[in-house]
Amino acid sequence: MQMNRFEHPLNEKTRIYLRLESLIRQIRHASTLSDPWQHQVFFRGLFDLLEILEQIQLKSELAKDLDKQRTKLAQWLNIDGVDQTALQEHLDHIDTAHRHLLATNRLGQTLREDRFLGAIKQRLSIPGGTCCFDLPVLHHWLHLPTTQQQQDIKRWLNSIRELHVALHLLLRLIRGAAQSHAQIAKGGFFQQDAENANLLRLDICPSHGVYPMISGHRGRFAIRFLPFEEGATIADTIDFQLAIC
Amino acid sequence: MQMNRFEHPLNEKTRIYLRLESLIRQIRHASTLSDPWQHQVFFRGLFDLLEILEQIQLKSELAKDLDKQRTKLAQWLNIDGVDQTALQEHLDHIDTAHRHLLATNRLGQTLREDRFLGAIKQRLSIPGGTCCFDLPVLHHWLHLPTTQQQQDIKRWLNSIRELHVALHLLLRLIRGAAQSHAQIAKGGFFQQDAENANLLRLDICPSHGVYPMISGHRGRFAIRFLPFEEGATIADTIDFQLAIC
Repeated sequence: MQMNRFEHPLNEKTRIYLRLESLIRQIRHASTLSDPWQHQVFFRGLFDLLEILEQIQLKSELAKDLDKQRTKLAQWLNIDGVDQTALQEHLDHIDTAHRHLLATNRLGQTLREDRFLGAIKQRLSIPGGTCCFDLPVLHHWLHLPTTQQQQDIKRWLNSIRELHVALHLLLRLIRGAAQSHAQIAKGGFFQQDAENANLLRLDICPSHGVYPMISGHRGRFAIRFLPFEEGATIADTIDFQLAIC
Repeated sequence: MQMNRFEHPLNEKTRIYLRLESLIRQIRHASTLSDPWQHQVFFRGLFDLLEILEQIQLKSELAKDLDKQRTKLAQWLNIDGVDQTALQEHLDHIDTAHRHLLATNRLGQTLREDRFLGAIKQRLSIPGGTCCFDLPVLHHWLHLPTTQQQQDIKRWLNSIRELHVALHLLLRLIRGAAQSHAQIAKGGFFQQDAENANLLRLDICPSHGVYPMISGHRGRFAIRFLPFEEGATIADTIDFQLAIC
């Protein structure tokens, strides 16, 4: 049975991490430029990422959160029945990602200083602003040989590699912190207490014809299921899967 | 020999027409949703188009310009040596597009009133704002069966069909108004008078390593060729093709 997965952050930092993860996925996917408009997806993703990096001191926050996860995991050291080799590998991964992250320059600095990217960024916010007369320099670049384009793209992607690795690892640890359980919403509504949670992961069968609107924080959350078709009625009970991570 | 084509509008209206043409091309291309991020290209294109339609009374302007082109063409009626059948076909095409355009509701009105599009539009301008927790309703839609998505897309595209046909025809007539001629820029610079022109079409071989920065208006324009690589020198003479339409 096909299920739709919805994730919802329960604090501001997780919200930012999820946004960044989505943007990096977008950038990496579009980096092949295999579709005529993928450059827009690529550059928009890159500039959105830069804008978020402007707003917060991501590096130290991310390092701190990785460290917290490390401490949590380390509690399992020397406990009987725990696979110590696997555990040590996990801890080593975290150490490496943590060290590499802290060793990088200011996140996004290379991208910020790139003259070509700077020229494009200004225009991308204008409606229809990527016409060749707006951005002849981009138009020229788009007609360069693929190898030359991919050199530039590789350089840009490289500059966010440490961020990508650390973020990927942290979110994997957060997501792995809890398992899904079957739940039932009555009258389209469900609420529950949580204990210092970061993230909700909700799976629901699309045949219900509803999508979840979630609100809440680390300690408590509420889910309201809304009908996708305007005016449609909601079933008395809606079953779904929920992990509180 | 591969040539890069650069188009440059010489008045504000042609600028808007070119932007809209580019957006409609983007929307139609992305409407297959064959790539995981194409929905972003599609919806962004749609909302950019709507924003431009908000700013100007496009329908009457476009109709007026089609009419002007019709008058120009009609001068060839009953002239010896002109293929009258082909000419009459052209004139009929213009008449039909003109009539259909004027018969439509306010351009973009159906899109503006669409509840689903309205919900997405608000969020799309937030950096990384298309995560599933920002837009659960979009996330649900993206998991609907393709046939259902394509029904919606067809409806949205239908609402800009008359605009598309009229714009396509007008720009074809404008572009067809002049032929390309070989030109040479000395010291990376070229300027010329024009006679009530709408559009420049410039073809240049990418091996020159330059792109054109064009400025001007209906009566006069200047082209400065800039090196793509920072600090690269410009050849004494640069050959290119130019049509002043």
